[in-house]
Amino acid sequence: MEPIRLGMVGGGQGAFIGAVHRIAARIDGQYRLVAGALSSDAARAHASAHDLGIAPERSYASYAEMARAEAARPDGIEAVAIVTPNHMHAGPAIAFLEAGIHVICDKPLSATLDEADAIAKAAKSSRALFILTHNYTGYPMVRQARAMIAAGRLGAVRVVQVEYAQDWLTEPVSNKQADWRTDPARSGAGGAVGDIGTHAWNLLRFVTGLQPDRIAADLSSFVPGRRVDDNVQVLARFKGGARGMLWASQVAPGNENGLRLRVYGAAGGLEWSQEDPNRLWFTPFGAPKTLLTRGGAGTGPEGVGRVPAGHPEGYLEAFATIYADAATAIRAHAAGEAVQTLLPGIDDGVEGMRFITACVTSSAADGAWTALA
Amino acid sequence: MEPIRLGMVGGGQGAFIGAVHRIAARIDGQYRLVAGALSSDAARAHASAHDLGIAPERSYASYAEMARAEAARPDGIEAVAIVTPNHMHAGPAIAFLEAGIHVICDKPLSATLDEADAIAKAAKSSRALFILTHNYTGYPMVRQARAMIAAGRLGAVRVVQVEYAQDWLTEPVSNKQADWRTDPARSGAGGAVGDIGTHAWNLLRFVTGLQPDRIAADLSSFVPGRRVDDNVQVLARFKGGARGMLWASQVAPGNENGLRLRVYGAAGGLEWSQEDPNRLWFTPFGAPKTLLTRGGAGTGPEGVGRVPAGHPEGYLEAFATIYADAATAIRAHAAGEAVQTLLPGIDDGVEGMRFITACVTSSAADGAWTALA
Amino acid sequence: MEPIRLGMVGGGQGAFIGAVHRIAARIDGQYRLVAGALSSDAARAHASAHDLGIAPERSYASYAEMARAEAARPDGIEAVAIVTPNHMHAGPAIAFLEAGIHVICDKPLSATLDEADAIAKAAKSSRALFILTHNYTGYPMVRQARAMIAAGRLGAVRVVQVEYAQDWLTEPVSNKQADWRTDPARSGAGGAVGDIGTHAWNLLRFVTGLQPDRIAADLSSFVPGRRVDDNVQVLARFKGGARGMLWASQVAPGNENGLRLRVYGAAGGLEWSQEDPNRLWFTPFGAPKTLLTRGGAGTGPEGVGRVPAGHPEGYLEAFATIYADAATAIRAHAAGEAVQTLLPGIDDGVEGMRFITACVTSSAADGAWTALA
Amino acid sequence: MEPIRLGMVGGGQGAFIGAVHRIAARIDGQYRLVAGALSSDAARAHASAHDLGIAPERSYASYAEMARAEAARPDGIEAVAIVTPNHMHAGPAIAFLEAGIHVICDKPLSATLDEADAIAKAAKSSRALFILTHNYTGYPMVRQARAMIAAGRLGAVRVVQVEYAQDWLTEPVSNKQADWRTDPARSGAGGAVGDIGTHAWNLLRFVTGLQPDRIAADLSSFVPGRRVDDNVQVLARFKGGARGMLWASQVAPGNENGLRLRVYGAAGGLEWSQEDPNRLWFTPFGAPKTLLTRGGAGTGPEGVGRVPAGHPEGYLEAFATIYADAATAIRAHAAGEAVQTLLPGIDDGVEGMRFITACVTSSAADGAWTALA
Repeated sequence: MEPIRLGMVGGGQGAFIGAVHRIAARIDGQYRLVAGALSSDAARAHASAHDLGIAPERSYASYAEMARAEAARPDGIEAVAIVTPNHMHAGPAIAFLEAGIHVICDKPLSATLDEADAIAKAAKSSRALFILTHNYTGYPMVRQARAMIAAGRLGAVRVVQVEYAQDWLTEPVSNKQADWRTDPARSGAGGAVGDIGTHAWNLLRFVTGLQPDRIAADLSSFVPGRRVDDNVQVLARFKGGARGMLWASQVAPGNENGLRLRVYGAAGGLEWSQEDPNRLWFTPFGAPKTLLTRGGAGTGPEGVGRVPAGHPEGYLEAFATIYADAATAIRAHAAGEAVQTLLPGIDDGVEGMRFITACVTSSAADGAWTALA
Repeated sequence: MEPIRLGMVGGGQGAFIGAVHRIAARIDGQYRLVAGALSSDAARAHASAHDLGIAPERSYASYAEMARAEAARPDGIEAVAIVTPNHMHAGPAIAFLEAGIHVICDKPLSATLDEADAIAKAAKSSRALFILTHNYTGYPMVRQARAMIAAGRLGAVRVVQVEYAQDWLTEPVSNKQADWRTDPARSGAGGAVGDIGTHAWNLLRFVTGLQPDRIAADLSSFVPGRRVDDNVQVLARFKGGARGMLWASQVAPGNENGLRLRVYGAAGGLEWSQEDPNRLWFTPFGAPKTLLTRGGAGTGPEGVGRVPAGHPEGYLEAFATIYADAATAIRAHAAGEAVQTLLPGIDDGVEGMRFITACVTSSAADGAWTALA
Repeated sequence: MEPIRLGMVGGGQGAFIGAVHRIAARIDGQYRLVAGALSSDAARAHASAHDLGIAPERSYASYAEMARAEAARPDGIEAVAIVTPNHMHAGPAIAFLEAGIHVICDKPLSATLDEADAIAKAAKSSRALFILTHNYTGYPMVRQARAMIAAGRLGAVRVVQVEYAQDWLTEPVSNKQADWRTDPARSGAGGAVGDIGTHAWNLLRFVTGLQPDRIAADLSSFVPGRRVDDNVQVLARFKGGARGMLWASQVAPGNENGLRLRVYGAAGGLEWSQEDPNRLWFTPFGAPKTLLTRGGAGTGPEGVGRVPAGHPEGYLEAFATIYADAATAIRAHAAGEAVQTLLPGIDDGVEGMRFITACVTSSAADGAWTALA
Repeated sequence: MEPIRLGMVGGGQGAFIGAVHRIAARIDGQYRLVAGALSSDAARAHASAHDLGIAPERSYASYAEMARAEAARPDGIEAVAIVTPNHMHAGPAIAFLEAGIHVICDKPLSATLDEADAIAKAAKSSRALFILTHNYTGYPMVRQARAMIAAGRLGAVRVVQVEYAQDWLTEPVSNKQADWRTDPARSGAGGAVGDIGTHAWNLLRFVTGLQPDRIAADLSSFVPGRRVDDNVQVLARFKGGARGMLWASQVAPGNENGLRLRVYGAAGGLEWSQEDPNRLWFTPFGAPKTLLTRGGAGTGPEGVGRVPAGHPEGYLEAFATIYADAATAIRAHAAGEAVQTLLPGIDDGVEGMRFITACVTSSAADGAWTALA
């Protein structure tokens, strides 16, 4: 099979997540990066394209020009990865969707709910696919957990505890990554809640399938001068009566990327931690605790990865699985075939923005219960 | 030194916590159990007393009789352990306090806030001591954590996450322990919130010293027919701006006694788990994570126990430390000396009842922020 | 039941293991310490006896006098705990055995194999019991492991890995505990191999029931000036073909009391660590790993302790179980009844000495395979 | 930079390690796979080449033909990956080395020491590079450990414990991977000792830099009908007096790829486990234990990977680092520049074969101490 022709918006020299997307796209050999609008700084865009082996004529000064030019080429890109800061998602996402080019967009979907709605509108009316890189859903044991709950192994889910704790914003800090994430104009109204709270929420939703009812949130900003929240505490109620708590923090010293999910049902529990992603605790009520391993005994097809059990896979492989699933979806789309994937899409993106908005709204109203709809 | 003469109310055959109190009292050899009103069932009381080597004439049919008779004996008990269900704490506690006999009472303090206030009144006007067995405060590494925070090792505390998860009430169950704990007439209005939520709250307060402002609680009862809460989710705000979350559950399959505390300040974090009590994570911001061990390098005098590092101590030793500290306090009291201990007392007991009451009240008001005062 | 009248040889002020024995004897309330020859220093012996509430007339200047006098008293001691350094076990052990008083002796049995044989001879000809405090056999999950192997849950045992790593002798050190343990005249020819290697060997034997064939040992002494081994590496062959490795070290920085056993059979594996003693991994081949907990689901009667699952028990409780089993055996002996216990006895003690001797011999012969018989 | 043109010998459909090499080569985008002799079965070779996008004319029926043809092309491969079973390493390795094409060869180096010597001879006389994929040396925290020991952070190394435990050969099994690994004609005289024992030995040597003196080995074959060892226990002595133990097993139920290294020196210890590769325990004597994380505080430049701390990297990234270092070396070689890398090479390969041979020889001589030279 020919690799899919991929473009990228953002991700120039010094960027973080763009490099991650590129590795993820390479791991399974299904993409070739051939075009980019890698930076709003022209010199940096050019230098970055050169580094990445992109032909000079396909290194563009703007996403708009890129969308236009690539759509017109017979060998134009089939998909584009958007890896800019949040407030710069909507523009390129809509442009490429309108140009009929598949979009693989970083999360959260946008900086505002209005932008999210605009992207959603474009996605619904485009023939192209829209994929949101909620990359943690690509971990095999996350998919294993989802399959087990869907199969009823936990009974009715009652309680969900999810958290994402980091410490890198414990003190005032200024660098490329920190600056835009703590600037409401670029990150949106949510700080920690948008950057990592949405990951935690998405993980909870992906694994449990619970339908949200209302949330009550308490957002804090502990570091002097910080303009967005750096600590988020949320109570959640789900349809059918399940209850949840979500904690996201960027000021919790000792935590690097402590994304952790625990789910308890009438018949058993599950526990998964991103920093130890190849293992999944399954604790059926009244029986010994069991530890499932990726690819190991008792783990189903969802929990198999690229290498055998005991050889750990990590963040990049999970991210690559999103790209691999996207490749499957893109090829099926090209062939006019139906395909079922676990890919996060536009609805997940809009829900994430609703979650951020509800948290900000609830917190401003002293923690009033707020619907997500 | 002569052992302190100890009596016991409750704790007859088939009881659980009474036996724990007795082991705790024996470990350091500072008490001798010489009297008891061990059961409201006369035959069981007598048989239990015989098993424990209590002389028949000091096995009483009621706590009232016991308080009267023991106070009158020249060799009467100096202290009494009250290990009855919650709704039967107030009667004996007040009787013995009025008789000038020191009281070592199980938690929570009582079934209702009114009872708690009555005990507090008796305690304030008695010359005897009142000690509440919030036994988890007896763990050396809990005391180590407290000392480190008091010494400013974490900087200003910002975020506290505490939880106590169990699974033994996941399904409907009927036995001596479960029955009274799920009967509002005997346990009080709180189920899980009273039985284990108060332990979590007390641990948070003991270690951090944070002063509570308001809480917002969501209490659930998942098991059909259950008359009290079996899952509790709480947001907390502290004076000075710190934020906390508390989760207590008795329906979380795979959890036995998962009491766990995490504290994050401007300069570092701490993490402790009751099921692995000899270890304490200390994570100063910007430095490698360190694992302190009971009695090990870097651990201060608060974190030393009875045996050297690497030989684990557990629940019974922590409980025994409450008894040992009580012995110190009782001997100092007898000698008319001042003594400083870390013993939980009547104020902690009343605060625990206020915490239960505030949680029940808040939850009934759809999670409204509620003061503890 | 009346407490058993207990005496103690050694264990005066400043001693370590004597205090552990006393706590162990107190935990279940089955002993009363009434006599002692607590120190070879008369003043210290007297002061120690006073601290412990032993009547002055039962505080003896020598074990010989104590054996004679107590045997003659109608209320004389029924059992004696011997907690002196290794080279001072044989004298009192033989004296009390000859006086018909049960002996509870610390390990290793003695400083030399000749002394061990003499004790064994006395034990065989005495009507009194001889119990060796290989205390790690008192951990519930160690007994659970033993029961599972005996029941065939692992199939035929093939491979055993056992180790006991400490770090307290990493540098030259002089104190009461270190001095005698590193003096061949007091500890015997083995250093680490005698002090902790015997514990590891005994644990392996207790849990697996494997019969030893031959061992090959490499003993090292890393610290300048040290006169005994501080690091021991052993290959072992067992009857029937199983193979084992044993490592004991007192110069492994970061290890406190790292006693750890792993057993692999044709059908599954087991793993236990003394520093996390309430858990036992059971890994049946071809099935998910399971974690058994003391008192938890799937754990049998051997694995139940004094408090429910999730409330950790530790070193002192395991030690106390040896004392509790000894009480059972002593009472049965007094009643002329047969009783089955898991208590380590004289044969274990002699085997331990043979193990030390074989290791020293093998190492001196450049690691030649050496029989234990 | 243009990708390096890569060929592959072995790795056709159904192979395991070939796919791993291909992912490793892709992750950093520095290679393009353009030629192959992927299978000795012509049809499978052709189909495999097609799957991988290799042009039909560069899919060869034999490695000899491939070496000849590629060396003659102006756009011929610059490097070849050899991923055949052990007994088929020597032929292609020598052919490509003689053709001046860099060789990236899987481990162990060969099936026999004679073959190893022949490859070494070819490597010494070739202008091309020879790289052995001891992939575990590519883990950042393994390199961090190596740097810390080299910098004297542990003081003089005294004791090393290394092990590699698996369970996949616990029972008789027949499949593509198992068959050749348990056939002495294809795997060489060593079974577990060659397949995984060499990894453990290499890791020990890479991290500590200790120079071997002699080893004593006990090889076992537990599974009925097995023709090679499936369990290996080794004592090792190093120049300067350090001591080590090595255990490798393929019959240890519950172990997947349990490669674990512990190193103890006069001033501290280190502990690393392949199944949790982003963490490294550093335990300086007399100080609290510290846990270093990949890319985290206190970790040096050797311990940085591709993504920030807390996002786990795994086996494929470590393998990719070998390929990335090889690319650096190959480009430097092409430019006539000197370059320093940590790449395992021909000497490591020969030493591995000597290790296998010494273990087999020692075990046959009842565990006699055997030199590695």
